[in-house]
Amino acid sequence: MPSPTPFTLTVKAVLFDAQNRCLLLRRSPANRHFAGCWEWPGGKLDPGEDFATGLHREVREEAGLEIELTALAGATQFEMTSAHVILLCLEARPLGTAVRLSEEHDDFAWVPLAELGRYQFSPGVGDFMLDYAKRKGAIS
Amino acid sequence: MPSPTPFTLTVKAVLFDAQNRCLLLRRSPANRHFAGCWEWPGGKLDPGEDFATGLHREVREEAGLEIELTALAGATQFEMTSAHVILLCLEARPLGTAVRLSEEHDDFAWVPLAELGRYQFSPGVGDFMLDYAKRKGAIS
Repeated sequence: MPSPTPFTLTVKAVLFDAQNRCLLLRRSPANRHFAGCWEWPGGKLDPGEDFATGLHREVREEAGLEIELTALAGATQFEMTSAHVILLCLEARPLGTAVRLSEEHDDFAWVPLAELGRYQFSPGVGDFMLDYAKRKGAIS
Repeated sequence: MPSPTPFTLTVKAVLFDAQNRCLLLRRSPANRHFAGCWEWPGGKLDPGEDFATGLHREVREEAGLEIELTALAGATQFEMTSAHVILLCLEARPLGTAVRLSEEHDDFAWVPLAELGRYQFSPGVGDFMLDYAKRKGAIS
């Protein structure tokens, strides 16, 4: 029997500023996939890394922000060629607002959930993000 | 500023047998909380443990079964006195059906999702389990 495709965990943060806008980052051409698509900060856990520790690290690396986790936002799944990816999203508060991007992203925006529909997201994740905005009552 | 309550990850498996019934375990009096309540197998990750590895381990310990993960079932959250618990549930297939319980449980049952409403679950998790059965079209 062939070994089944492994399940991996990716974590993302829905960072809300004081005006209740969430932080979107735009994927730069340095990315092999989905350059130009917008996303919430986050990424894959390092081996042996706790999900909360990994989420703090990813947001620090990608946005230069320290955060405080506040609640579950939701979970979804999508297929990559080598893995079933479980995407776990948590709501968080940034402990500052001065965003400092890494080379993975070339733009950022603080966006009300009601305006998420104007942005292009990676396939498999956009529907989940819009569904989240619906559950929060921001779009119908 | 006091340190915020930590977020921890607990994983559970919705194990479906060939008749599409899921495995419920009944918490024994050896548990400090919620003895008599039914639950899907699973538990807290060990430090440094990958979520899939931890889920395989927990199901092996609690039900004596090897499993193959198949898909995301969903995620929810609840509060404990010392932690915000994120509960991540995956659907899985058992690679056998001979259940062997640990001392944590004193009974088990293979239950169609449509009959989940007959069982008593721990507070904070029962609504999520019934909502899952609704999303799967098993109850209205």
